[in-house]
Amino acid sequence: MRIDNLDTPAVVIDLDRLETNIARFQAYLDRHGIANRPHIKTHKIPQIAQMQIAAGAVGITCQKLGEAEVMADAGIDDIFIPYNIIGAAKLERLTALARRVRLSVAADSAAVVAGLGNAMAGTGLELTVLVECDTGMGRCGVQTPAEAVELALLITRTSGLRFGGLMTYPSSPEIGPFMHEAVRLLRNRGIAVERVSGGGTAGMWRAHEHPEITEYRAGMYIYGDRYTLRAGAMQLEECALTIITTVVSRPTPDRGVIDGGSKTFSSDLLGLEGYGLILEYPEARIVSLSEEHGVVDFSRCSQRPVVGERVSVIPNHCCMVSNLFDEIVGIRRGNVEVVWRVAARGMVR
Amino acid sequence: MRIDNLDTPAVVIDLDRLETNIARFQAYLDRHGIANRPHIKTHKIPQIAQMQIAAGAVGITCQKLGEAEVMADAGIDDIFIPYNIIGAAKLERLTALARRVRLSVAADSAAVVAGLGNAMAGTGLELTVLVECDTGMGRCGVQTPAEAVELALLITRTSGLRFGGLMTYPSSPEIGPFMHEAVRLLRNRGIAVERVSGGGTAGMWRAHEHPEITEYRAGMYIYGDRYTLRAGAMQLEECALTIITTVVSRPTPDRGVIDGGSKTFSSDLLGLEGYGLILEYPEARIVSLSEEHGVVDFSRCSQRPVVGERVSVIPNHCCMVSNLFDEIVGIRRGNVEVVWRVAARGMVR
Repeated sequence: MRIDNLDTPAVVIDLDRLETNIARFQAYLDRHGIANRPHIKTHKIPQIAQMQIAAGAVGITCQKLGEAEVMADAGIDDIFIPYNIIGAAKLERLTALARRVRLSVAADSAAVVAGLGNAMAGTGLELTVLVECDTGMGRCGVQTPAEAVELALLITRTSGLRFGGLMTYPSSPEIGPFMHEAVRLLRNRGIAVERVSGGGTAGMWRAHEHPEITEYRAGMYIYGDRYTLRAGAMQLEECALTIITTVVSRPTPDRGVIDGGSKTFSSDLLGLEGYGLILEYPEARIVSLSEEHGVVDFSRCSQRPVVGERVSVIPNHCCMVSNLFDEIVGIRRGNVEVVWRVAARGMVR
Repeated sequence: MRIDNLDTPAVVIDLDRLETNIARFQAYLDRHGIANRPHIKTHKIPQIAQMQIAAGAVGITCQKLGEAEVMADAGIDDIFIPYNIIGAAKLERLTALARRVRLSVAADSAAVVAGLGNAMAGTGLELTVLVECDTGMGRCGVQTPAEAVELALLITRTSGLRFGGLMTYPSSPEIGPFMHEAVRLLRNRGIAVERVSGGGTAGMWRAHEHPEITEYRAGMYIYGDRYTLRAGAMQLEECALTIITTVVSRPTPDRGVIDGGSKTFSSDLLGLEGYGLILEYPEARIVSLSEEHGVVDFSRCSQRPVVGERVSVIPNHCCMVSNLFDEIVGIRRGNVEVVWRVAARGMVR
């Protein structure tokens, strides 16, 4: 089937670009001796995770236990969940998963460490726990290098747990002093820091500027989107994911409406203006989204589409798009080569 | 099972409130002689659509053909799709659906009408087509009453199609002059206007102020959310949908992080400040969302949660939440009574 025969809206992946993106970032990390541990939240597709592993990734990163279970079912055997896992139901699943794969998690408080320790008690398993550090994002994470040391010591003292190192997000230039100091303090206490895990596609080509970082978690580098374009991390001709839509209305000379809205693109703005880039009409602006409509201002365009015309959109945030579609289509030179089920889509727990 | 045993994040529906919301709006429309045609985009669950029909709705509204197919499979037999259906693949499905249910669609251009006519040609079917009118929203729709008449005439002249009336969204006070004039012009031409379809939960209690309106499409009235609260259309104690989350981090005295982010709540702001209302901490503000984290500012709260505590969130926009979860849980007085699959979730086409 040709791409032109896909009904819209459809998420299509240019497989040549996908493969190039996977290879290029792997080569960069290899060159700098940094382990690649890609974040699968972007694609949620086991087959793409397997491509990343085949290219040289040491394992993967999942944000949710449910994503990790799907990936383990597909044979991925080294999984990092940089998230505080809390509550009896999840801890039971975590223990089951730890029996199947090389598993590591993050923690940022004594309460989380206690829960992990209780879950592992008596299982004979040893779970690797990294300390999450808040190096400026203002989300989770211990607030100072001294707190990181304190939590690392608690992990080393907790039966069933193993201190695995430090984790932060994103790897902005500011992380240096925090990570450097935390590593120094830990080594002074005689505690080995086997992994320092950084991440983020926006800063991916600067990973080597942080000497502490031993592994890197990037997600969006495989697809690209308007956010990664604006960050300067990727170029337009490297973007592998587009959403094919149809112009369903041209109610005024300037206005058009496409058959994708917030249930297609998500409402993520991420500081950008508008909700996507229309490749055929780059001067057009997707000014607002309803759930199933995208309202486009074509006033800056000399040529304008007619009703029924198909246009391709680079979304603001590809990770959100993956989570809205049950299937995506891999194309090569305009031909449909594969249809992938987004197997870890909607894994909310 | 008790609600306290549900793992998080979980979408729970208070069934008493759901039933009351369905009954109350039906009674209001009955009182004013307006047909109820609820929009199922909000819930995407056949069982709730059946509750709405049982309460007195004449049929349902779907935004996507795929949603309509799911609902038809569940036995719903009167479906309105107020959307321009375009392209061979969809028109073939539309024709198949028209054989199974009493189907109506909207159109706002000659191009769309031509496509519908071609699809129906030779089938022996007659598809009901309403003219979509842009009465101020600036999305789809003809721009003037005169254009509405012109398109209605085209529909009446097209074999296989039947003019079914006029449709607009939302039913704000401004729609009056447009609809009044369009109906007058059509009647002057001897064209019956059997339906004038309005919609929107925000303005639902003012539906009777528009004498032209014969049917009403509301979606969110069954669940409620922060948007309908702000619009004054519902009260907090009527909101039936909450998302149970867990506090996974308390990195600073003021900051907390819950295990729901933009893949749980969506990023919809709809003009609101923050991403949800935490019922147990109403002074708290959900200030930012990552995909799986919600960052909460508790600085205005005298009491603050500990790690592991569960909190209930009223989201900004319930329709988006439904589309992110495969299942939702119906509870009554704290007990799980039913688990519904969101069968029309992700029906993007």
